Amino acid sequence: MTRDAQIKRLCQRAKAGAISLAPAKTPIKNKTLSAMARSLIKNTGYIVGQNKKDVARARREGMPDALIDRLSLTPSRIKAMADSLLNIARLKDPVGSVIETVRRPNALVIKKVRVPIGVILMIYESRPNVTSDCIGLCFKSGNAVILRGGSDAINSNKAIFNVLRKEVVRHGISADTISMIMDTDRRLVELLLRQTGLIDLVIPRGGESLIREVANRSRIPVIKHYKGICHTYVDDSADLKMAEDICFNAKVQRPGVCNAMECMLVNRRIAARFLPRMIRRLQDAGVEIRGTKEVASFGDGVVMAKESDWYREYLDLKLSVKVVASVDEAIKHIMKYGSSHSDAIVTRNKARAKRFLREVDSACVYVNASTRFTDGGQFGKGAEMGISTDKIHARGPMGLEELTSYKYVIYGNGQVRT
Amino acid sequence: MTRDAQIKRLCQRAKAGAISLAPAKTPIKNKTLSAMARSLIKNTGYIVGQNKKDVARARREGMPDALIDRLSLTPSRIKAMADSLLNIARLKDPVGSVIETVRRPNALVIKKVRVPIGVILMIYESRPNVTSDCIGLCFKSGNAVILRGGSDAINSNKAIFNVLRKEVVRHGISADTISMIMDTDRRLVELLLRQTGLIDLVIPRGGESLIREVANRSRIPVIKHYKGICHTYVDDSADLKMAEDICFNAKVQRPGVCNAMECMLVNRRIAARFLPRMIRRLQDAGVEIRGTKEVASFGDGVVMAKESDWYREYLDLKLSVKVVASVDEAIKHIMKYGSSHSDAIVTRNKARAKRFLREVDSACVYVNASTRFTDGGQFGKGAEMGISTDKIHARGPMGLEELTSYKYVIYGNGQVRT
Repeated sequence: MTRDAQIKRLCQRAKAGAISLAPAKTPIKNKTLSAMARSLIKNTGYIVGQNKKDVARARREGMPDALIDRLSLTPSRIKAMADSLLNIARLKDPVGSVIETVRRPNALVIKKVRVPIGVILMIYESRPNVTSDCIGLCFKSGNAVILRGGSDAINSNKAIFNVLRKEVVRHGISADTISMIMDTDRRLVELLLRQTGLIDLVIPRGGESLIREVANRSRIPVIKHYKGICHTYVDDSADLKMAEDICFNAKVQRPGVCNAMECMLVNRRIAARFLPRMIRRLQDAGVEIRGTKEVASFGDGVVMAKESDWYREYLDLKLSVKVVASVDEAIKHIMKYGSSHSDAIVTRNKARAKRFLREVDSACVYVNASTRFTDGGQFGKGAEMGISTDKIHARGPMGLEELTSYKYVIYGNGQVRT
Repeated sequence: MTRDAQIKRLCQRAKAGAISLAPAKTPIKNKTLSAMARSLIKNTGYIVGQNKKDVARARREGMPDALIDRLSLTPSRIKAMADSLLNIARLKDPVGSVIETVRRPNALVIKKVRVPIGVILMIYESRPNVTSDCIGLCFKSGNAVILRGGSDAINSNKAIFNVLRKEVVRHGISADTISMIMDTDRRLVELLLRQTGLIDLVIPRGGESLIREVANRSRIPVIKHYKGICHTYVDDSADLKMAEDICFNAKVQRPGVCNAMECMLVNRRIAARFLPRMIRRLQDAGVEIRGTKEVASFGDGVVMAKESDWYREYLDLKLSVKVVASVDEAIKHIMKYGSSHSDAIVTRNKARAKRFLREVDSACVYVNASTRFTDGGQFGKGAEMGISTDKIHARGPMGLEELTSYKYVIYGNGQVRT
């Protein structure tokens, strides 16, 4: 069989798997998810062993320590993956739930009912826990999933996949509901992205270049975010202690992720009271401050920001800082330089909060909280398939509901159209 | 300015229009829609006059009478367009409505709030009423719209557009919320389909070849249906009189539209009682029956169906007919040959109805009613932007809600992530 035919075959089997999974009852899906969780724990030794191969290769190839840390699996990380599956088992099954019922004057009853999307292709380069999270979410929402992880984590991904798929089969559900592309040749991705009619949705997760490549090549709908240039605007009516803690958390707690703050905007009226202390605290935590001349007047060691810095997703201990005249200027800055991911205002002024929340056109807009909460788990979704900054279908963290479509079910008693 | 620059400029203005329209209050939007309706009526003479130019050209170019009828505007058709705008004014404004509120253990309150999508490009070749329906729906849902109608109706479309846009401006809303591409050069469509970042969604409406061209060329998300191969399955437990009326209506009432029945499936147990009378009634109405040998045994003049006929959207007084053994065989036939648009079962058996409604993976599934009801107006949506058979974002008739996205608005009191 040619490669092309192999990929087509795999997608056809996934589609058949999706059709068989769609009507599966909630209890059997939940039972399978719980069994998957137990099996992950039971197979901790096997999974850690396979993961060691990936880590050893990564070290040989000189991967930076921070990335090696993300790749490494420990018993406690495997426990967290299992907990996530148990969480998903506990969440309400979206399939079959009625979104809306309309009764028409002619007595037709029209129900808008959630249904699975079908076959979802997940292309990712991130940590191995993405494998189990995505399997769990797709399985519970009645979708077949085709996983295509990065070559760095291939042994870890395979191990997790094998353990979980065994439970699917043991519970009498088609193995074709969960597939993995084991061959890490990049040309296979191109073949996959042409399978319109078999694959319903593609979700890429990883670096911007991977996502751009997928979006450019795909003939199948893609849901994605390219980057997270998240802002926090500190209003002059803010509780300054609260603002300091929120900004510190948003930048420092985990700088390498998409919901970390990349730019802080500070109202001019409180700049002299807020910035000196804030800059010092950030610098003490190792953060490089890139700011305007005005910002530099409030602290030592501020690097002059270039125009291009306002567009940057540092994913690092670096922060762009600007002083603004008003919430208006903050909103304008965010609409120009932001990436529509997550943006926050810290304020005690309700009218200004309302304006910010309404006018900043981002997937997640916060008042008085850290942007770091943009996350499926933190939103109560159990886990996430990814985060979307698109306007079509799903925005923000994607959980079970965001993995569904709907259909109209219409009940009549002989109605015809006149 | 080059053409490329002109199109980019128009899209940039539409985006600015969308940003200005998004926070518009419901009463001003409704007032504008009512004024639009009044103005259509007042300008009936002007619109009909412009329409006469299109009709005269169509006649010169030998357009078939059925299409000329669809193109022609009369005072009563203009009245219907105005009524549709008034209906849209009466419907609930989806913008700002809260889809879901989640309170997290850390006291974060997360609201999922409907927002407009942004800029919508509508490419259509259908009747001129599409112009006013789409302007009305996009305006009420807070979206800027760029209209690109077919050259056949260009004078009619321009006239309707001019009348409606005047009301937008008169109510203090930016003219850029409503744009029309007046130049009918097809290359402009290609330029439009590359404006990612400015246009958020493309909805093509018209013949299959137009839609395929748009879907293949677009770098922007597209929502669409290619065709409507709608089925009605007459179960052996059906009320046969009801089944006959439903099938007759679904085929004959308006055969040229996407929700008309193209294939009738009849259970073998009632074929001898149902088919002879049904075939005669359809043939008396001018319908050509294309069936299997078994079907031909129940009536004169049945044409032998070829395998390719089961895939056909006739859009005409032609019907494929097949006898099947069970609801299972009907479902399998529909899943193989259908287009996931609208399919119906006529039955008194609840279990079989349930199976059909669950397992037929179409945008609209009916029990005991004509597929002709798949329509935004009939569903209570006031009008429709189009009908989707996609699985992403919107399925079935698209009204106001389907023209919205959402954002998460998160209220905190200083929460940081640990």
